[in-house]
Amino acid sequence: MPKKNLDTLSVNTIRFLSADAVETANSGHPGMPMGMADAAYVLWTKFLKHSPGNPKWFNRDRFVLSAGHGSMLLYSLLHLTGYDLSLKEIKNFRQLHSITPGHPEFGLTPGVETTTGPLGQGFATGVGMAMAEAHLAARFNKTNRSLIDHYTYAIVSDGDLMEGISHEAASLAGHLKLGKLIYLYDSNQITIDGSTEISFTENVGKRFEAYNWHVIEADGHDHEEIESAIRKGQAELDKPTLIVCKTTIGYGSPNKEGSSSSHGAPLGEEELRLTKKNLDWDPDAMFHIPDEVKTHFRSTVGKGEVLEKSWNEELEKFRQESPELASELDTMLSRSLPENLEELLPVFEPDEKGLATRKASQQVLDSIAAHIPSLFGGSADLKASNLTGLKDRGDFLPGSYEGQNVNYGVREHGMGAAMNGISLHGGLIPFGGTFLIFSDYCRPAIRIAALSKIPAIYVFTHDSIGLGEDGPTHQPVEHLAALRAIPNTLVLRPADANETVWAWKTALENEEGPSLLALTRQALPTFDRPENAPASMVQKGAYILKDASDGKPEIILMGSGSEVSIAMDAANELISKGRKVRVVSVPSWELFKKQPDDYKEKVFPPSVTKRVAVEAGVTLGWKQWLGKDGVVIGIDRFGESAPYEEVYKHLGITSENIVKEAMKLLS
Amino acid sequence: MPKKNLDTLSVNTIRFLSADAVETANSGHPGMPMGMADAAYVLWTKFLKHSPGNPKWFNRDRFVLSAGHGSMLLYSLLHLTGYDLSLKEIKNFRQLHSITPGHPEFGLTPGVETTTGPLGQGFATGVGMAMAEAHLAARFNKTNRSLIDHYTYAIVSDGDLMEGISHEAASLAGHLKLGKLIYLYDSNQITIDGSTEISFTENVGKRFEAYNWHVIEADGHDHEEIESAIRKGQAELDKPTLIVCKTTIGYGSPNKEGSSSSHGAPLGEEELRLTKKNLDWDPDAMFHIPDEVKTHFRSTVGKGEVLEKSWNEELEKFRQESPELASELDTMLSRSLPENLEELLPVFEPDEKGLATRKASQQVLDSIAAHIPSLFGGSADLKASNLTGLKDRGDFLPGSYEGQNVNYGVREHGMGAAMNGISLHGGLIPFGGTFLIFSDYCRPAIRIAALSKIPAIYVFTHDSIGLGEDGPTHQPVEHLAALRAIPNTLVLRPADANETVWAWKTALENEEGPSLLALTRQALPTFDRPENAPASMVQKGAYILKDASDGKPEIILMGSGSEVSIAMDAANELISKGRKVRVVSVPSWELFKKQPDDYKEKVFPPSVTKRVAVEAGVTLGWKQWLGKDGVVIGIDRFGESAPYEEVYKHLGITSENIVKEAMKLLS
Repeated sequence: MPKKNLDTLSVNTIRFLSADAVETANSGHPGMPMGMADAAYVLWTKFLKHSPGNPKWFNRDRFVLSAGHGSMLLYSLLHLTGYDLSLKEIKNFRQLHSITPGHPEFGLTPGVETTTGPLGQGFATGVGMAMAEAHLAARFNKTNRSLIDHYTYAIVSDGDLMEGISHEAASLAGHLKLGKLIYLYDSNQITIDGSTEISFTENVGKRFEAYNWHVIEADGHDHEEIESAIRKGQAELDKPTLIVCKTTIGYGSPNKEGSSSSHGAPLGEEELRLTKKNLDWDPDAMFHIPDEVKTHFRSTVGKGEVLEKSWNEELEKFRQESPELASELDTMLSRSLPENLEELLPVFEPDEKGLATRKASQQVLDSIAAHIPSLFGGSADLKASNLTGLKDRGDFLPGSYEGQNVNYGVREHGMGAAMNGISLHGGLIPFGGTFLIFSDYCRPAIRIAALSKIPAIYVFTHDSIGLGEDGPTHQPVEHLAALRAIPNTLVLRPADANETVWAWKTALENEEGPSLLALTRQALPTFDRPENAPASMVQKGAYILKDASDGKPEIILMGSGSEVSIAMDAANELISKGRKVRVVSVPSWELFKKQPDDYKEKVFPPSVTKRVAVEAGVTLGWKQWLGKDGVVIGIDRFGESAPYEEVYKHLGITSENIVKEAMKLLS
Repeated sequence: MPKKNLDTLSVNTIRFLSADAVETANSGHPGMPMGMADAAYVLWTKFLKHSPGNPKWFNRDRFVLSAGHGSMLLYSLLHLTGYDLSLKEIKNFRQLHSITPGHPEFGLTPGVETTTGPLGQGFATGVGMAMAEAHLAARFNKTNRSLIDHYTYAIVSDGDLMEGISHEAASLAGHLKLGKLIYLYDSNQITIDGSTEISFTENVGKRFEAYNWHVIEADGHDHEEIESAIRKGQAELDKPTLIVCKTTIGYGSPNKEGSSSSHGAPLGEEELRLTKKNLDWDPDAMFHIPDEVKTHFRSTVGKGEVLEKSWNEELEKFRQESPELASELDTMLSRSLPENLEELLPVFEPDEKGLATRKASQQVLDSIAAHIPSLFGGSADLKASNLTGLKDRGDFLPGSYEGQNVNYGVREHGMGAAMNGISLHGGLIPFGGTFLIFSDYCRPAIRIAALSKIPAIYVFTHDSIGLGEDGPTHQPVEHLAALRAIPNTLVLRPADANETVWAWKTALENEEGPSLLALTRQALPTFDRPENAPASMVQKGAYILKDASDGKPEIILMGSGSEVSIAMDAANELISKGRKVRVVSVPSWELFKKQPDDYKEKVFPPSVTKRVAVEAGVTLGWKQWLGKDGVVIGIDRFGESAPYEEVYKHLGITSENIVKEAMKLLS
């Protein structure tokens, strides 16, 4: 069979696997896979360096389907090129327990590099992957061996480019000169509501040139043009490349191509048959894969094995030539932490004056920067406030990628998604800082991390009204509750410097999802801890920081972060009144919920029904720890601009108020 | 005194009022007001059409300080031009109970048009104001009178332009050809972490040209250049204008100008003195306003009165010439709703099959579109899914602004902030739709609405796992809880078509903050309601939808939205087992919390301790309605991609499960 016909057959196989799956599920998006099948085919068969038999081969090219609604395009390619994704799974598209969900999910489907669907996330996640590649290449390609040397590709859509996050990530990628980032933009001029003319008329190419991208136009159905464009993109190493592929959505459908009607619903039985006839396909065949097409695509498996074998040989030589560097690489690829991590961490002496937990956090970073080579992070233009610098580890700069300190700019959302990409790439532990209030700006990226079990670490400082004068626009009140609401998200709000140390340790050790540290701007006392309340108890989520002398309290005070010291003051006042008081520090609801019942009941004995919780935020959710009679002192309103001590007083987050509520309960 | 010297004196007065206030507060941002004082002075004295004596004069130019951290620039201008903002307030900058908080807050300070500080919000809010102006002008300037005819100005910063929301809003504004939008970009090349070179090297001018903006460069300290640029901007009516003002942050400070050290902290006593000397100012004078400067600025009051008087005369003539149109304008400016609103709304007959609440919502819009002339809204490219069209009310199109249907594109964040601007402008009731999952993308704009008491209406459809096959990336589980956490935010999740009608009515009548409607994709039965449970009870937040025959239930089932019908099924099953059951529909926690205690206790009698709550979302917060023995059935994990009935079953949101839990409690 002449090559040209094999190309056509192959592309149409992708089209109809996709359209048939959507038709069978009676749900999904056929138009995008049909429109981008040509470009994806060229990319996957002529360029993509991967090994379907080992989707985790480290030096593979990364491919991101940012337009995640076109998931069937990716599933078709994965099946055809020989990933562990059977035709049965394709037939079970969008069904319970299949590995072919509506939108691609990392961790569920071999070969899916990241979870996409919420528009713009994939775009920005790919930027993180390219950052990771650039950084690791700078650190490990020091000999004549290019161990880390791959491209990051993505297919992005009009919708991706309308989202603000695409701006943040594209601007950052252009600034950083990430030349090995190549994005194929499916410019089909159609969105859900119709033509892009109704809302999206910007000059995308010019916009990306303004970001310092290399922009190429191509006919998205012309294989030679696409091939040439990708080659040009590969050759331009100082700029990311955007290939504007002019395509027709729903390509081949006589009545629906070029229209939004092919975007988000099955073609319909009759139209699907007409489309098959139109493209010279058997109208009765469903999920048909011509043998020659299968053979053609499946050659990828063998090619991948060869690539991988050759890379493994290089790695072996590298190990022999540069054993120390190789050992560092191994440490990083396995996300290993130092065995003596605890010894490396600072210990803070009791100190009534104390320090802000953000400052304790900086000291943690200072103490581990030289010992955890995989740390890679920074802040969204608040480094001096978030205190997220890695001492002596250099800056990650455009064209000079060896440093581990990243200047994200005022791009919280882009930073969050980039962290996802950095983590997914492997080899690095990403962290990023901003004010807690701006967790709202990166929330969709945090959600992707939670859903994908990505261990990104967020350093959210200025975590309450305690930031004072900047006022209600900058004072988070609802944010702790709103973040605790996200499944699989570890929120840690340490109460003093030593809890901060253990919060960091817990975050570093958590490989199952994002960890969010909520840290203060203002100084907090460093507690003089009783022997049975070491700061390592942070790992339990809640613990008895101070107890009644006989261990039989009549009332329990509890709180998180900066409010624990206020509760301690209240406890001392109550003790001076002859009361038997326990103080429970609650740095993490999620961790406490995982404890066995007997531990929970030890901390909160059901018999002690008098309880007061305090948090400088909304009261939502505290009720669950209060038993039937407990009360919570919180802030169910916005804050105030004033020196922080005055704001605390004005909003009633004071030891006096705790004592008052406690005495009410006790009387 | 020659004019030039008066200009210099005036600008330096702004600089030092700002720097002195920051110094006195020992907190704040002096650099931006000092750097932008020249440009702001030219804008406010030569162009801005406003009336300090009546900050609400409708046809005033709108001015937005998007770089809200430079709040002292705005407060200085407001004080100097004669707004009701005394020097005492300036001296009390950032103090409790002052009207000069850290960042400008709408509603607190006369002349502050919108709350800013979180970067990018002001930029996008201004776009909404310009949309409102364009629309109202198209509708009411039909005679030879230009009643609605003003510009919207903003000062925006590097940080604003790095945020993704600036991309969304700028792209939309360029698409819409909003020629009366003129933004002054404070291009000082400095952000908190240092030079913009470290993270922000895009070509901003070229980027904005790509958005179809008119871009002009000017020396931000050269009054003639600025004046000329603004004039050119005014003359270009087919494109928004961005004036790139090259400025020096902290202008005049010998040791801190041009450096990030002048950005976010007081200059310090010594440096402030040096700066004053450097600019020929009395180093000992604090809060000094030369008499001639005061006289000069205060002439704005009289000029404003003249402008306003002249406009009022035009309005009077308009009333006489076009009484019907004038009456419509009055209705809109006063945000009046039809007196017979209730009669206009649809009533749905009981129907086991029922319909999706998003469809009921569309019927509400259909029924009121012709009767509420101030409705103005659309969707972020999901009109056909959110069902947010206003029948027969035309599209709001580039250059043709009379239609009330807005195509926002895939720009949730930009849409949210634009809605804030539309509402703040006055005359219009903005609404906007997207999927509930994407409330995360516009959350920072919702927060600004809540903080500023802006009555924006959000139509969040596809509100749970009930959306089915699109899967966990699109299934909100934590979003109801996370939105309920925001103070002053009304979350309404109606349980059937008639509750949807009353949810809309409640949202329209809520003038004190944003209202968020959470609506289903899937059909819900329309309840056959007992006489004492009309859908108007939505306004109570929670009410008894079905009761034990003697009004003495042994167990209460409760839920919101689509889960209420599941609870009803469970109730029927329990009744068939001889149990006495009450079902409480809980469409809004916020409304229920506002009810008097006796109503609350009527709905949830303390004596009935056996309670089961059900919601297709995280359980966070439900505990507060459960009493000591109640249980909640929810989803504390992410969803699944599958047909929705299967997802509900798989995740245990079923009547069988409710019955099981109820029987456990009852036994």
